[in-house]
Amino acid sequence: MVVVAAAVAWEAGKPLVMEEVEVAPPQRHEVRIKIHFTSLCHTDVCFWEAKGKPKHPLSSFTSFSVLRYFSGFSVVESVGEGVTDLQPGDHVLPIFTGECGDCPHCHSEESNMCDLLRINTDRGGMIHDGQSRFSTKGKPIHHFLGTSTFSEYTVVHSGQVVKINPDAPLDKVCIVSCGLSTGLGATLNVAKPKRGQSVAIFGLGAVGLAAAEGARIAGAGRIIGVDLNPNRFEEGTKKFGVTEFVNPRDHDKPVQQVITEMTDGGVDRSVECTGSVQAMIQAFECVHEGWGVAVLVGVPRQDDAFKTHPMNFLNERTLKGSFFGNYKPKTDIPGVVEKYMNKELDLEKFITHTVPFSEINKAFDYMSKGDCIRCIINMGA
Amino acid sequence: MVVVAAAVAWEAGKPLVMEEVEVAPPQRHEVRIKIHFTSLCHTDVCFWEAKGKPKHPLSSFTSFSVLRYFSGFSVVESVGEGVTDLQPGDHVLPIFTGECGDCPHCHSEESNMCDLLRINTDRGGMIHDGQSRFSTKGKPIHHFLGTSTFSEYTVVHSGQVVKINPDAPLDKVCIVSCGLSTGLGATLNVAKPKRGQSVAIFGLGAVGLAAAEGARIAGAGRIIGVDLNPNRFEEGTKKFGVTEFVNPRDHDKPVQQVITEMTDGGVDRSVECTGSVQAMIQAFECVHEGWGVAVLVGVPRQDDAFKTHPMNFLNERTLKGSFFGNYKPKTDIPGVVEKYMNKELDLEKFITHTVPFSEINKAFDYMSKGDCIRCIINMGA
Ligand SMILES: NC(=O)c1ccc[n+]([C@@H]2O[C@H](COP(=O)([O-])OP(=O)(O)OC[C@H]3O[C@@H](n4cnc5c(N)ncnc54)[C@H](O)[C@@H]3O)[C@@H](O)[C@H]2O)c1
Ligand SMILES: NC(=O)c1ccc[n+]([C@@H]2O[C@H](COP(=O)([O-])OP(=O)(O)OC[C@H]3O[C@@H](n4cnc5c(N)ncnc54)[C@H](O)[C@@H]3O)[C@@H](O)[C@H]2O)c1
Ligand SMILES: [Zn+2]
Ligand SMILES: [Zn+2]
Repeated sequence: MVVVAAAVAWEAGKPLVMEEVEVAPPQRHEVRIKIHFTSLCHTDVCFWEAKGKPKHPLSSFTSFSVLRYFSGFSVVESVGEGVTDLQPGDHVLPIFTGECGDCPHCHSEESNMCDLLRINTDRGGMIHDGQSRFSTKGKPIHHFLGTSTFSEYTVVHSGQVVKINPDAPLDKVCIVSCGLSTGLGATLNVAKPKRGQSVAIFGLGAVGLAAAEGARIAGAGRIIGVDLNPNRFEEGTKKFGVTEFVNPRDHDKPVQQVITEMTDGGVDRSVECTGSVQAMIQAFECVHEGWGVAVLVGVPRQDDAFKTHPMNFLNERTLKGSFFGNYKPKTDIPGVVEKYMNKELDLEKFITHTVPFSEINKAFDYMSKGDCIRCIINMGA
Repeated sequence: MVVVAAAVAWEAGKPLVMEEVEVAPPQRHEVRIKIHFTSLCHTDVCFWEAKGKPKHPLSSFTSFSVLRYFSGFSVVESVGEGVTDLQPGDHVLPIFTGECGDCPHCHSEESNMCDLLRINTDRGGMIHDGQSRFSTKGKPIHHFLGTSTFSEYTVVHSGQVVKINPDAPLDKVCIVSCGLSTGLGATLNVAKPKRGQSVAIFGLGAVGLAAAEGARIAGAGRIIGVDLNPNRFEEGTKKFGVTEFVNPRDHDKPVQQVITEMTDGGVDRSVECTGSVQAMIQAFECVHEGWGVAVLVGVPRQDDAFKTHPMNFLNERTLKGSFFGNYKPKTDIPGVVEKYMNKELDLEKFITHTVPFSEINKAFDYMSKGDCIRCIINMGA
């Protein structure tokens, strides 16, 4: 048992409270890790604001004493029984979705939707025994998405813990473990633009900007950013290699028609990173017939319907969805860190804010107001 | 000018009439060919029955003195100016969709939707001058889909004429040029099942049975046929390697659920060959999350909508459409003929009937009644 500081969301929408928390030792297939840097994403904000009422299909949890998640950068402190691939001192990233290595998805070359460890917003305890490893004054505290990194120490299933290059700078690579890989992989692993091709990115939040970074890395000829919020445009061009912008609100025509006309028949690839079902349909209908590929990333609402004329498929368009950029956490994420180490991937431009752990609630403010791509939370500061 | 016998559809839904027809010489980029064997498919029957009223988005022609199409097996008689890749005596298949070799689609590795020569149901004349090469008693007769093979001689754009192995038996390979390649290619080129994987085929008409033949060639482990018509089942198993059947009418549950339960989470691949939008949605929703690929082949109605929850994509399913099996006619169809010559592909089982040219209306009867997969029309008999 270690006793550490943790930020606990006792109530939806209310500021997180710093508590002294006891962290139990890791059990079978678990590791206990010390968090050095963490961050948060819209999923955190979304669940925190949800007030127990599910807003989208990922969400259905009932009680709300959860430790907030985001995957952080950390060092293994101790390992439980049966853990063979990690040892104390390893530099690791805990990830909100895992890889057991032993299910049909883990065996498949294509899927990363592990049957055992895929994202599960319902689970407040550990898989091994359903219990929490956190408590304060004898009261258990729920885990969130299996990572729970708003604590100086946390316990995570070893299938969600990725060992990375020990030379990687802690305060940068911690952002690799969430939206960044989601957007990057959606472009690089799923849309797969060829050098010189045109790519439309719908939604220029952190995920969309990461998708644009993927398009830049792939050597796309044109990167067309689409967003309803004109403030997203400057950031996109100045730092993210977006070459053109379309704000659907500036046009009388449907945006798929605007893009089709700009590109002589449609873009070669599109990546939707908004969560809006209208944008999903637009992203699909604006790709070129014959070879166009559209990729959906945004998480829709429970009552949404994707609707299009089937001829749009018959004319040889492809529609795919992606989860966590189709990266298998343990197999592929070390390679994303290497891309950064090789200077192929630029992470710095995603980090717009940094706060000390004691000011974690500021990070929630920054994210809710949308003037922030990623805010690093420095656990040691 | 040659004077030959041709079967002309003067009026929708009325028997074709044998006429003496004059066939003009080929103009620039055209060839005149002698038809030895031809056949017909549901597109012929559908347009013939349409009575000038479009039934689906492919259809919008106004006058109706068309020579029926289907691609047949033929020998080049003469070639027009600018034709360099064909010469008299070549054994060829005329195809309802072409390959100009010089547009973005022809240059793309993936597309076969040539800007110049893709299927066009509106065009009753030749591209070169908009005129017909057929007339009878001074009255022009429209072409159909650029092939018009219900005539002893026809004139076709050279981009729609595929030179094949001269050893290939004329009365078999003539069926390669239509629904057979459509279904075969949808499986082999688009769905691409891996050895041992499960494939669901929706609709066991000629196109669906060809898709099943593709699954057999690819080494699929399970081939699940889905059809509303129980008569399709015997043919499927006896001759086409279909291993299991599902008739949606035999179940209270949605068929996608039936298939998901049969296959422990969904089939690896599905190919829809019905034209029913319900079947399209079912074919998509029954593929396995993580890696499943569904391919649409059936031609929908103008007012149809494909509708599904976007989470079905986010869970890493892929949906594609295919046109003519994604084969580029001139580049790829000679290889399909070779597959038959190598005994990889079995064509005989698709040919259920044969009639002499003079009895061509019987072929329409067989096809309308649905007790026929393919009926060969022997022009020389
Ligand atoms: N599939 C996955 O694995 C995965 C992982 C993480 C996040 N997500 C999802 O990705 C999406 C993007 O996440 P984010 O953190 O970048 O969000 P964000 O809110 O920062 O960015 C979304 C952007 O989309 C824009 N937008 C909204 N509706 C639009 C429309 N109709 N047309 C054009 N632009 C529109 C907004 O103005 C905003 O700039 C969310 O839906 C999130 O839930 C998915
Ligand atoms: N994309 C292309 O390039 C292309 C080319 C040729 C034909 N087609 C289309 O392919 C489709 C099949 O052609 P075909 O000649 O095999 O037709 P067909 O009529 O012989 O076969 C269709 C089969 O589907 C079955 N069916 C209909 N609705 C169904 C449903 N809801 N569920 C299950 N089964 C159902 C029918 O009982 C029938 O057996 C047609 O829509 C045709 O227009 C497409
Ligand atoms: Zn697994
Ligand atoms: Zn072309």
